[in-house]
Amino acid sequence: VEDRIGLLMGEKKHNVSLCLGRILVELDKIDDFVTAARADNLEQLQAFLRIPSVSTLPHHREDMIRAADWIAARLRKLGLPEVRVISTKGNPIVFADWHVDRSLPTVIVYGHYDVQPIDPTALWDSPPFEPSMRDGRIYARGAKDDKGNLMIPIVALDAIRHVCGLPPVNVKFLIEGEEEVGSPSLLDVLSNHRRLLSADLAVCADGSMWSVDTPSLTVGSRGLVAFQIDVLGPTSDLHSGHFGGAVTNPIHGLVATLSEMVSPKGKVKIAGFYENVVDLSASERRHFASLPFDEKAFKARIGVTELSGEEGFTTLERIWARPTLEINGIWGGFEAEGIKTVLPASAHAKFSCRLVPNQDPGHIVDLVNNYVRSRRLPGLEVTVGHLQWSARPYLMPTDHPGLSAARRALEGVYNQQPILVRTGGTLPIADLLRRELGVWLLFFGFGEPDNKTHSPNEFMRLESFDRGIRAYVRLFFELAKLPLSSSGG
Amino acid sequence: VEDRIGLLMGEKKHNVSLCLGRILVELDKIDDFVTAARADNLEQLQAFLRIPSVSTLPHHREDMIRAADWIAARLRKLGLPEVRVISTKGNPIVFADWHVDRSLPTVIVYGHYDVQPIDPTALWDSPPFEPSMRDGRIYARGAKDDKGNLMIPIVALDAIRHVCGLPPVNVKFLIEGEEEVGSPSLLDVLSNHRRLLSADLAVCADGSMWSVDTPSLTVGSRGLVAFQIDVLGPTSDLHSGHFGGAVTNPIHGLVATLSEMVSPKGKVKIAGFYENVVDLSASERRHFASLPFDEKAFKARIGVTELSGEEGFTTLERIWARPTLEINGIWGGFEAEGIKTVLPASAHAKFSCRLVPNQDPGHIVDLVNNYVRSRRLPGLEVTVGHLQWSARPYLMPTDHPGLSAARRALEGVYNQQPILVRTGGTLPIADLLRRELGVWLLFFGFGEPDNKTHSPNEFMRLESFDRGIRAYVRLFFELAKLPLSSSGG
Repeated sequence: VEDRIGLLMGEKKHNVSLCLGRILVELDKIDDFVTAARADNLEQLQAFLRIPSVSTLPHHREDMIRAADWIAARLRKLGLPEVRVISTKGNPIVFADWHVDRSLPTVIVYGHYDVQPIDPTALWDSPPFEPSMRDGRIYARGAKDDKGNLMIPIVALDAIRHVCGLPPVNVKFLIEGEEEVGSPSLLDVLSNHRRLLSADLAVCADGSMWSVDTPSLTVGSRGLVAFQIDVLGPTSDLHSGHFGGAVTNPIHGLVATLSEMVSPKGKVKIAGFYENVVDLSASERRHFASLPFDEKAFKARIGVTELSGEEGFTTLERIWARPTLEINGIWGGFEAEGIKTVLPASAHAKFSCRLVPNQDPGHIVDLVNNYVRSRRLPGLEVTVGHLQWSARPYLMPTDHPGLSAARRALEGVYNQQPILVRTGGTLPIADLLRRELGVWLLFFGFGEPDNKTHSPNEFMRLESFDRGIRAYVRLFFELAKLPLSSSGG
Repeated sequence: VEDRIGLLMGEKKHNVSLCLGRILVELDKIDDFVTAARADNLEQLQAFLRIPSVSTLPHHREDMIRAADWIAARLRKLGLPEVRVISTKGNPIVFADWHVDRSLPTVIVYGHYDVQPIDPTALWDSPPFEPSMRDGRIYARGAKDDKGNLMIPIVALDAIRHVCGLPPVNVKFLIEGEEEVGSPSLLDVLSNHRRLLSADLAVCADGSMWSVDTPSLTVGSRGLVAFQIDVLGPTSDLHSGHFGGAVTNPIHGLVATLSEMVSPKGKVKIAGFYENVVDLSASERRHFASLPFDEKAFKARIGVTELSGEEGFTTLERIWARPTLEINGIWGGFEAEGIKTVLPASAHAKFSCRLVPNQDPGHIVDLVNNYVRSRRLPGLEVTVGHLQWSARPYLMPTDHPGLSAARRALEGVYNQQPILVRTGGTLPIADLLRRELGVWLLFFGFGEPDNKTHSPNEFMRLESFDRGIRAYVRLFFELAKLPLSSSGG
């Protein structure tokens, strides 16, 4: 902090420099303000949660606009000089900018105001759009993903503003309403507003910690590419007695094709699939092995007696740093009770690959196409189609100064060092911001893996909400030390 | 015929012997009677067809009883001295007996009064239970299967009775109401009434000829045994990102298991599967090759460019005389539009084997169980269950005197020799009667393969109905020459 003080001292942003200079003193004041404003902040979060902004369902269109307007109004109230609601082909994107000084780093906070559907509705203990506070938690659709998480940096900035007048960094917000449907409108907005959205670092106000006791920083995610394979045979379902033996059964063709693509143990057999995979270094493997991963609890949680996968790798290595091909669905012929001795006209499957550095989705599409084209099944037509969105893998350099800032911020709140982790899931926004804006994305979200995200009874712990606010306050101050990138400011 | 006359001359059945003696003369009279009674017979068939006796749907229970009573009344009207409606746990079975003389062979005619459901209803050009006569055909559900076919021997016997007073053989009827649901009540009735049902030959008043121009006699059918395989993994569907690579995907386990059971070309890879298969003789293969099978028309009909199957066999050999394993249905995970990157909790398939002499369904069940038990997939539980009914293959000796009688009867109507054929389908009744009553079953049905059996717009050609009646008249007289079996009459 100290080296930044001198830099700012001669400038007009007196309050900021004062605040930075007296950080240890002011921090207590800011924390006190957060405590004092708690009831009001939770009130606001509940108001936000009452808007049923379900992006997957077209009849919530009006609610999407209400939610975008609500968050824009909240940012205006916070004092951000520029707040815009950008129209798109889909749901609007909210942009806000609080430019303090060109000599300060610029941070762009990403979040989303849309939520998942609520079904099965009957399984909710309280109505999903009437937030309920009980047992130290707030229950509602979006409580964690992402309305709760998104409110955290806003409340943190509000407290900083009250105590210091201005934030210690330039802050931008980028809040979309289509995260739950694959962000179809985001790419256009990013590429059309590169200058507006430029920053030194992006921060993702979405996501989770390792557990309620263990803070963590997620530095990597796997990419994704998805396919559908269709095997067509006779023009209609045939009687398996009158025709069985005469023609190739499309299900036989499908299971043969799929079983030659992936083994039960998860080894992908498509030629070239692993060719661009970056091997884990010895130190990465040591780091993974050092993490508090409880394999017994993991097995119990998913209800299997035995874990399994690509040989020669630990479970965390397989989930985080090895690519997979999973068949997500398969169907064809007769599925109901009893017997129908049909030889079906067609058979189908969907499958998707999780990718790791440096696999490229487009290259994997080519390999899958080549594999399917290279096979010939008499009397069958086999086609493979690439489904909708794909995403590249993401891996932030572990020596990135943003990570150091985040580490110190978390340490200040949790009183312990966060662990560096990855996710086996896909975070398309990370690679998208990296490619379009040239920034790395720091994941700084305060959910936990048990928050029932996307499920009935989604909740956020009030303790995590409070901790998140204090952590964001510290993060903003820590990020004031961030070196400016060429595109930043 | 002549040698039977002497035998009968001294007996009281004057009319029969007279009739047998004057067969060539009387046949014309009988045919004339059939022609005269045609309108009346079609009227009766239409009344029978109006009863919606759909055995697969429980709400037709009353209609099943009405249909059974209708056919019993028709047999009483025909003059059969004993007609009984036998109650079962399911739909009643109609039994009738016309014992003429113990020195005559006894023939038991089998048929069924139940029909398939009518859906999709919208595709019928006339209501399925309001018979419509147009273009020389009668359209209705059951027109061919089996009400039309079942009326044929009844009308034939009626004509014989009018002209001769008595039939030339002892005749029994066994008419069930559960053929379309796998005959669940029939076995009990057969084993509890062996004496009542005893005969020298059974005749099946159900089925089809090769084509409208080519009469045929079906001498063999394949057996059937059906399975469901269930592969269970985690207790619920998992996120393929967070868990992909850690556990065996049940769909991967399923496709591996199935692809190791059967090749795309239809070779069954289960150890021992072919061990009891009787190879076709050189003369059987020559006979198959001599049949008027039009492979080009066959391919066009089912819409495939290429036929395929077990290597080293012709298409007819593969369908009629080689066993198969067909996967009838497969399902698991996500099937809807778009992507859901799930790692499913389970995956399932149904498959069935068509069997040929001398494969035994029970033995095949053992082999399949052994195969599945011999495999181990980490973290998955694989179970295979044998579904409901199974049936043995059936093959009537081609030198059976019943076949010679049928051949002569058909020749007399079609003016050409029928061809001996098999079916790749399963006719469980054949093996059931063979085992329970010790009789062979002669297939003598007058549909054609294009009758849309089980489909909308099922029909029977009036020409075939008429030919069938004249053929049955001749068959009853020809069967008078049948040697008496020990269990007969």
